[in-house]
Amino acid sequence: MTHKIAILGASGYTGAELVRLISQHAGMEIVALAAERKAGLEMAQVFPHLRHLSLPTLCKIGEIDFSGIDLCFCALPHKTSQEVISGLPLDLKIVDLSADFRLRDADAYKKWYGNDHAALEQQSEAVYGLTEFYREDIRTARLVAGTGCNAATGLYLLLPLISAAVIDLDHIILDMKCAVSGAGRALKENLLHAELSEGYHPYAVGGTHRHMGEFDQEFERVAGRPLRIQFTPHLVPANRGILATAYVHGDANAVLDTLNAAYASEPFIQVLPMGEVPSTRHIRGSNFCHIGVVADRIDGRVIVVAALDNLTKGSSGQALQNANLMLGEDERAGLMMAPLFP
Amino acid sequence: MTHKIAILGASGYTGAELVRLISQHAGMEIVALAAERKAGLEMAQVFPHLRHLSLPTLCKIGEIDFSGIDLCFCALPHKTSQEVISGLPLDLKIVDLSADFRLRDADAYKKWYGNDHAALEQQSEAVYGLTEFYREDIRTARLVAGTGCNAATGLYLLLPLISAAVIDLDHIILDMKCAVSGAGRALKENLLHAELSEGYHPYAVGGTHRHMGEFDQEFERVAGRPLRIQFTPHLVPANRGILATAYVHGDANAVLDTLNAAYASEPFIQVLPMGEVPSTRHIRGSNFCHIGVVADRIDGRVIVVAALDNLTKGSSGQALQNANLMLGEDERAGLMMAPLFP
Amino acid sequence: MTHKIAILGASGYTGAELVRLISQHAGMEIVALAAERKAGLEMAQVFPHLRHLSLPTLCKIGEIDFSGIDLCFCALPHKTSQEVISGLPLDLKIVDLSADFRLRDADAYKKWYGNDHAALEQQSEAVYGLTEFYREDIRTARLVAGTGCNAATGLYLLLPLISAAVIDLDHIILDMKCAVSGAGRALKENLLHAELSEGYHPYAVGGTHRHMGEFDQEFERVAGRPLRIQFTPHLVPANRGILATAYVHGDANAVLDTLNAAYASEPFIQVLPMGEVPSTRHIRGSNFCHIGVVADRIDGRVIVVAALDNLTKGSSGQALQNANLMLGEDERAGLMMAPLFP
Amino acid sequence: MTHKIAILGASGYTGAELVRLISQHAGMEIVALAAERKAGLEMAQVFPHLRHLSLPTLCKIGEIDFSGIDLCFCALPHKTSQEVISGLPLDLKIVDLSADFRLRDADAYKKWYGNDHAALEQQSEAVYGLTEFYREDIRTARLVAGTGCNAATGLYLLLPLISAAVIDLDHIILDMKCAVSGAGRALKENLLHAELSEGYHPYAVGGTHRHMGEFDQEFERVAGRPLRIQFTPHLVPANRGILATAYVHGDANAVLDTLNAAYASEPFIQVLPMGEVPSTRHIRGSNFCHIGVVADRIDGRVIVVAALDNLTKGSSGQALQNANLMLGEDERAGLMMAPLFP
Repeated sequence: MTHKIAILGASGYTGAELVRLISQHAGMEIVALAAERKAGLEMAQVFPHLRHLSLPTLCKIGEIDFSGIDLCFCALPHKTSQEVISGLPLDLKIVDLSADFRLRDADAYKKWYGNDHAALEQQSEAVYGLTEFYREDIRTARLVAGTGCNAATGLYLLLPLISAAVIDLDHIILDMKCAVSGAGRALKENLLHAELSEGYHPYAVGGTHRHMGEFDQEFERVAGRPLRIQFTPHLVPANRGILATAYVHGDANAVLDTLNAAYASEPFIQVLPMGEVPSTRHIRGSNFCHIGVVADRIDGRVIVVAALDNLTKGSSGQALQNANLMLGEDERAGLMMAPLFP
Repeated sequence: MTHKIAILGASGYTGAELVRLISQHAGMEIVALAAERKAGLEMAQVFPHLRHLSLPTLCKIGEIDFSGIDLCFCALPHKTSQEVISGLPLDLKIVDLSADFRLRDADAYKKWYGNDHAALEQQSEAVYGLTEFYREDIRTARLVAGTGCNAATGLYLLLPLISAAVIDLDHIILDMKCAVSGAGRALKENLLHAELSEGYHPYAVGGTHRHMGEFDQEFERVAGRPLRIQFTPHLVPANRGILATAYVHGDANAVLDTLNAAYASEPFIQVLPMGEVPSTRHIRGSNFCHIGVVADRIDGRVIVVAALDNLTKGSSGQALQNANLMLGEDERAGLMMAPLFP
Repeated sequence: MTHKIAILGASGYTGAELVRLISQHAGMEIVALAAERKAGLEMAQVFPHLRHLSLPTLCKIGEIDFSGIDLCFCALPHKTSQEVISGLPLDLKIVDLSADFRLRDADAYKKWYGNDHAALEQQSEAVYGLTEFYREDIRTARLVAGTGCNAATGLYLLLPLISAAVIDLDHIILDMKCAVSGAGRALKENLLHAELSEGYHPYAVGGTHRHMGEFDQEFERVAGRPLRIQFTPHLVPANRGILATAYVHGDANAVLDTLNAAYASEPFIQVLPMGEVPSTRHIRGSNFCHIGVVADRIDGRVIVVAALDNLTKGSSGQALQNANLMLGEDERAGLMMAPLFP
Repeated sequence: MTHKIAILGASGYTGAELVRLISQHAGMEIVALAAERKAGLEMAQVFPHLRHLSLPTLCKIGEIDFSGIDLCFCALPHKTSQEVISGLPLDLKIVDLSADFRLRDADAYKKWYGNDHAALEQQSEAVYGLTEFYREDIRTARLVAGTGCNAATGLYLLLPLISAAVIDLDHIILDMKCAVSGAGRALKENLLHAELSEGYHPYAVGGTHRHMGEFDQEFERVAGRPLRIQFTPHLVPANRGILATAYVHGDANAVLDTLNAAYASEPFIQVLPMGEVPSTRHIRGSNFCHIGVVADRIDGRVIVVAALDNLTKGSSGQALQNANLMLGEDERAGLMMAPLFP
């Protein structure tokens, strides 16, 4: 049986990435693609790289008959997403890729996003979409909230270490290097090729990045007490990839053992041998996450590094992995393609 | 049934690209990977992006038992390839990705490559691997010679137009823009990131590029008379992609009609509507070739533009497409993934 | 004596490039910087790379007292420029970097830009700013119209050859590869890093680029008869640089001799030895233009290649060179810095 | 008076950068350029971007008559440099750009570089070339040892803070993002455009980078006790630039005040207002270093970020600045050009 799929917000990068992935999925068929401002266009006019696919014409959300839809991906902007989702059928399975349902606490949501939440009921049923840590909940969820791409990277690095208490919780620093597609297709001066290429810089310095809300929520959950890490993202001149360098206090062997144990049977999380470090070029376009551990020359200090593709494992690939679980498909379906190198 | 596959020259870019593609092919299994200087290493040590795959350890060619192999890809350097292939079992199906068996005429080979050919017997049975134009011969071939990546791009553009005589044969100019992976993993100063990025330049100017031998051979075949085009490649700061801009004399509608007719039932060659032009970003990592036609403001002048990925449709994808034919597989197997954008 | 300089439109790339160049010019002092929408900001807030300079605060054009200004650079958008310039003092020396005063014929202007010209009087006195060909007129001009950056590149290549009649006027093809800063700081989807990097494509194909108007005007002037060339620009993933590959009919030695003669005493135009070709990486950030000539394998066909930096020699460097002439300064002042490589 | 300058090792990036800078220096003339393997070539053949300059033909070191030389820059590889310098005239002023004379302690040298030092006498007289901290010693030095480019960046960030004891000496983490030209023109697979562009990764993780020797030496000197920081460099796909993100414990205002006081009268070190962070794109091609301070959301934690151009302020610009001091020139001569943006 082929599952009928709708994608709302198909004209952004995560929407296009979903189409790329689903085009290789034997058990899914895209039956509706919505993009409000581009309704009426063919997908090939918006994304010529998808020209070879037979896809429905872009439409408005209101034009979709959801009765025949098995699962709906929402790749809409933050805030728009909660408004749209609150109006969708109550029995429709949904994977949301926005930030709207990630934070379980309404106050935390308001603190990081500045507005009151418009769909508190849906928020309360949403499951946080970090597959490897919420797998069983996701299987039976109706609404799954895709994680932030930076959040996913940091959580893969640190969640097992905090859970296992093999690192000092008061000295965790996460220095992140993020490619530009994470900012989406927004028209901003600093995202222009002439501005971005050949240069790099930190942003949201000092703990002000919104994904911090996800770190706080998830780390406190496993630590059982408030926990604040330091997190500094940097924008680098590349299109895909997140590289996270974590500085922690602990024993390198214990750190590596903990990660190996946590991810031993995971299909997409690969822990490297002691001393090896990942590179974003080796996961580009794939759903894999590589993690490496190195002991520092200072005794008791460890560097842990993770790399994943923000559009795939950090967003649309994660969404598809969750959808597979929700629909009873093989979790890996449509996601086992190798990275593109060079 | 799963076909047993060997890849010789697995430590170069085209070897790695073959592994990437075959990893998604349900009917093929890689049973041998040879790389003389890296024998003994795991593929993941040479190409960490393939870490998730179970692959044979790299070996020397002499260590392979070819009796169980259904088809062998040779991704070896020029000249090495002919020496190796002349020593392989005479009934082994082979797809060669080097330049060694592309030119049917021994003198032409010597003219462009500077040395006498060391495997004339095999050369005489080799079929030129431009799938869309040699499909039936390839089905029954034992040895298929993969085309040059620049040659493929120019041939897709021009072969139908020359065949149909809709353009003036004495005024054909092909200005090509080539990404750097076409030069392979060679250690040359001008391929360094610090040298190449942020700049671009023509090379092999004046008709001296070796792929010219392929143009001459194939164009003369369909024109039925000697035919010389002008061809200037340029190296641009990107990793994958070839963009060919052809300037021809003729009628734009006749040119477009001819291309549409030639490629109407081809799964990988896509002709765009009149006036639209392709971009390398829309075919990256895929086996598709996009072709567009535009009338110039000067009456009787036409610009035809083609784009493909040099490592996929221009090399390893083409090789797999040919192998599919030789093994009786669906020609498209393992090759329908969408391009990676952004 | 130090000349007092104003720059209108200081918040764009050509404005910033003028500041960069003038900061090394001993005979000029910037006394006014206008940018309507950013008035009130310091230049360092708009362009942090100019932080080390003492510069006037950005103001509105209406706030400038032009009585003390010796020369004004207008780096405003097309159409805005003619409106502003028509209101400036009639005795103010002006170098305009927009397209507004390049075309001497009002009908040609309307044809290429779509609107009636709003400052026909100023247009009639404007001198075309291609320094090497209008030097004496520029010395005494009040208003100089900077050329298009693509136009400059093509004109340097072809003007001497057309003047000397050493090439066939009916078979001139100009294939151009342009870096992205030529598009300015405009917020367009296709100029985003995620869209542009790693890919390239032609645009304005078929003779529709506005700089064609400049080619037609200047080529007809020296040819003494109507002359249409073919011109196709391509956008490549680099920030600075234009590379023009011209395909012409003629004798390579005659072509090289003609170029050598034309540019023998020019400080910024460098003709390479026969067979050598330029690269944009070797002129980046400088006011130099490199030109190379290669004979094709087809007798009577010649490839001529030129490279320059669109923001320097193609725009702001050219503007400063012209301003030097207008003010009686050494033409080279502020312009002899070496290219930045790597 | 014009000082006569020799450059040994003129065929590398730092050699070419010296030529670029000195070409704009009114008080220096290059009279000898040595490059052993390229002796006999013109500089324009090795570096076509310097084509416009009149420069001596490349020669072997042995061919230079040092009697007329006022100052010699040595841009030779490590180890070669000490061998060459030990054979130069004992009264020749030398600025060495290699690592050979940076470490005052012979054991430390052997520890980080693996071999015994071959020029201990010269080592003992060498002054460490971090201009802002050794200015008076440099004025009278005969031999100045240029710093590592990563070392310079980290030292500018941290030396004043450690000196003033405004940060906790046991919790200093330096996460660095380095452009590729810092690796020189070496032919290594991981420096190829196809390998490096579009990806990034850490290297020398765990405190094994050789510039660590310089950090240890300089920090211990001002701290008055052994001091170990953590330092992880990352290679990013850009050509020029180092961005260092330091995580320290202290008070943000005290940190900023300390940096402001340390660099108040420095021409090249610019401290940004509280909360602003630098970008490598704003110092490219220049001798400036930008430093910014941000308070973390965790009380008592501070992020300090520095950016400079590894080839200019991190190497050849620093060398010229030191040469200016040694020759009694204005320290800023030849070094005040603005960064190249975009």
